[in-house]
Amino acid sequence: MTQSSLSQKFPAQQLRPIAAGLFQQLREMSFDGVGVTRECFSPVETASQDLIARVATEHGLSVGRDRVCNLVVTLPGRDTRAPFVATGSHLDTVPRGGNYDGAAGVVAGLLALVSMKLGGVVPPRTLKLLALRGEESAWFGKSWIGSHALFGRLSESDLSRARFDTGRPLRAYLEDVGADVGAIARGEPLLQPSDVAAFIETHIEQGPVLEAKALPLGVVTGIYGNLRHMNVICRGEAAHAGATPRFLRRDAVVAVADLVMRMDAHWARWLDEGKQLALTHGIVGTDVKEHAVSRVPGEARLSIEIRADNLQALRDFHALLREETQAVARARGVSFDFDEAIVNRPAPMHPQWIERLDRLCERARIPHMRLASGAGHDAAVFAHAGVPTAMLFIRNAHGSHNPHEGMELDDLLLATRILADAMLTEEE
Amino acid sequence: MTQSSLSQKFPAQQLRPIAAGLFQQLREMSFDGVGVTRECFSPVETASQDLIARVATEHGLSVGRDRVCNLVVTLPGRDTRAPFVATGSHLDTVPRGGNYDGAAGVVAGLLALVSMKLGGVVPPRTLKLLALRGEESAWFGKSWIGSHALFGRLSESDLSRARFDTGRPLRAYLEDVGADVGAIARGEPLLQPSDVAAFIETHIEQGPVLEAKALPLGVVTGIYGNLRHMNVICRGEAAHAGATPRFLRRDAVVAVADLVMRMDAHWARWLDEGKQLALTHGIVGTDVKEHAVSRVPGEARLSIEIRADNLQALRDFHALLREETQAVARARGVSFDFDEAIVNRPAPMHPQWIERLDRLCERARIPHMRLASGAGHDAAVFAHAGVPTAMLFIRNAHGSHNPHEGMELDDLLLATRILADAMLTEEE
Repeated sequence: MTQSSLSQKFPAQQLRPIAAGLFQQLREMSFDGVGVTRECFSPVETASQDLIARVATEHGLSVGRDRVCNLVVTLPGRDTRAPFVATGSHLDTVPRGGNYDGAAGVVAGLLALVSMKLGGVVPPRTLKLLALRGEESAWFGKSWIGSHALFGRLSESDLSRARFDTGRPLRAYLEDVGADVGAIARGEPLLQPSDVAAFIETHIEQGPVLEAKALPLGVVTGIYGNLRHMNVICRGEAAHAGATPRFLRRDAVVAVADLVMRMDAHWARWLDEGKQLALTHGIVGTDVKEHAVSRVPGEARLSIEIRADNLQALRDFHALLREETQAVARARGVSFDFDEAIVNRPAPMHPQWIERLDRLCERARIPHMRLASGAGHDAAVFAHAGVPTAMLFIRNAHGSHNPHEGMELDDLLLATRILADAMLTEEE
Repeated sequence: MTQSSLSQKFPAQQLRPIAAGLFQQLREMSFDGVGVTRECFSPVETASQDLIARVATEHGLSVGRDRVCNLVVTLPGRDTRAPFVATGSHLDTVPRGGNYDGAAGVVAGLLALVSMKLGGVVPPRTLKLLALRGEESAWFGKSWIGSHALFGRLSESDLSRARFDTGRPLRAYLEDVGADVGAIARGEPLLQPSDVAAFIETHIEQGPVLEAKALPLGVVTGIYGNLRHMNVICRGEAAHAGATPRFLRRDAVVAVADLVMRMDAHWARWLDEGKQLALTHGIVGTDVKEHAVSRVPGEARLSIEIRADNLQALRDFHALLREETQAVARARGVSFDFDEAIVNRPAPMHPQWIERLDRLCERARIPHMRLASGAGHDAAVFAHAGVPTAMLFIRNAHGSHNPHEGMELDDLLLATRILADAMLTEEE
């Protein structure tokens, strides 16, 4: 691989105050008394884009908006006809969220382009920063609206989704910001995947792994897909707690506990075998309409979410779940009623890009590791559209979607340096 | 032991239509469209007593009411000054309950006395049938009101308890039926335990054991006590289900499942060792205000009810529970917050009476077994007051407190025969 490297002259000290100023202004314009709130397709999201656009313009980058009103910042390359290399993330947040989930990737992308301007580097290809709109599902129950719309993958029913707090449909919010709703509704691709040489998203890690391992950066191997049962009902038989002996019970709570423990053991075993998987029962409970302290519970529900980095693993673990469910049903005289499984496909990152990011980190002597992303990202939409896609994680304490996100600017600058190098990398 | 046995001439064929008629009339006067409803201290409970009283009078038994307005049917013995032998149960039901829970014991007691009249038997001691009022906790949240009042054990705060559906206090209902509320409020014993030679309660089994073992009768060894935690809260840490790896999770649901399975295994072991115990988690659940399919649950609650036939077993199993709770807390990074334990003492049945009932069943060649009562009964109040107390269970399908209680009249008549024999038994 060849590159016009910036690593030796990366202007971290010049970029630092720009980043600090941007995060401060973003926080000020969206502070809600607890955390920050930047609603999808709202004036505050637009104002956040405007802030990024202003700094971009100040540094000689050109700015515009695509037909979904994603902000596009461009640094033309030597070959303007070749597919461009894009970076980006989102500026919207969940209600009372943190300032870095999304914005960190946009700021890193902006600083990467600014660093080239400051260093007088002309990239071989055109580089673009996309500040994508509407990533968070919190507002319309739909994730990655901006990137879905880019690839013609927003449906009519998606456009009718009501915002949870106002009840107004997504369509109205798209019109508010001036998006081309007609084209979006017709499913027209507004971006050809073949026009994009690569999409590299920088994002704070939403989990605690990098923090726990004291590593500033992570190279994402893939974005987990998931298989969800929102509501599985275990039916046994309600009975008198005093009068029903153990051997005659059909206790829904013990059956659910049994299933949870069996699957937890399988999960532990899969991890030991090096498989990437997560299993969560976020919702569990007896029926409030009939449960009682002195009643053998006749019914209990649980949610089941399996996340994995490949579809086969999701399917295999799901098959194991069904097997264990049947075993528990036989052993404990209960039945399990499954709702339909909702499947979101995993999005593996591009193998060569994983290698490249790894190598760039090594070369820059930045401690890092490979890890999968359990959370979803815009990058998954690009990967599913066929764009070679990669992700860099930035160490972050206290998780995301809360006001306590703890990213350090130093880590953001390390990510920016690797991102800039990566965007300048040409294939061998 | 000596007795004036009825066994050889027990008038089952004469008693059968009386029993059938009584149950039919009880059902008719209290049918609610689904099951039967006979509220504590209500006109329908009084009417049920009147029905019993009418049949008693028709057969030459004397009837009256005590100061709690429990119905008292008396058959004077040869020695009217000796402590009397009592039988009895209750006529009230839960809302939409079954016709036999309680009433079976009253009818059996009545028929036992009638059988003596029919057979011209004069018992050595006076025999009494008590149709006790207000046994079910469903109405005022307090069980065994009639028997508690008899022994001066109803508190002022009990008298202020509101009926769940009307909000009117128990005191008002006691006044309605003409009870001596002043004496009850002062805690005056209305019955001296030393006046009662024995109390023998017949009741349908509320569990499925006799049905499962095809035995018409059971001799109760004791009435379980219980130790309850209504609300134990397990606190872990809420986290992103995709971004939080297993080794960093503090998952409240998995912790609760772990605890439930550990305790279930202990319970199974205790039963194997021949100990009498029941363990129930009737209420389990994540917090509806914050749980989500994609969120590692940070909090879950569960109720814990331990029932056992002796206080030491309750305490030992509770100690084991606390140990396991600590082990789970250590292993899974959670904490358990226990509310105060509520303890109801077990009531062992009188050992000699257990022997006697056993022997009478054997002599009459009625298949039977000894078993503990996991549910509470008026008999426990008599036992705690120091009265030698015994219980006979009648086989019953489909549990109790529901319209599907399935007692056969033939089984009731077998119980009546044993009860009559038992009431005539004199100590050796």
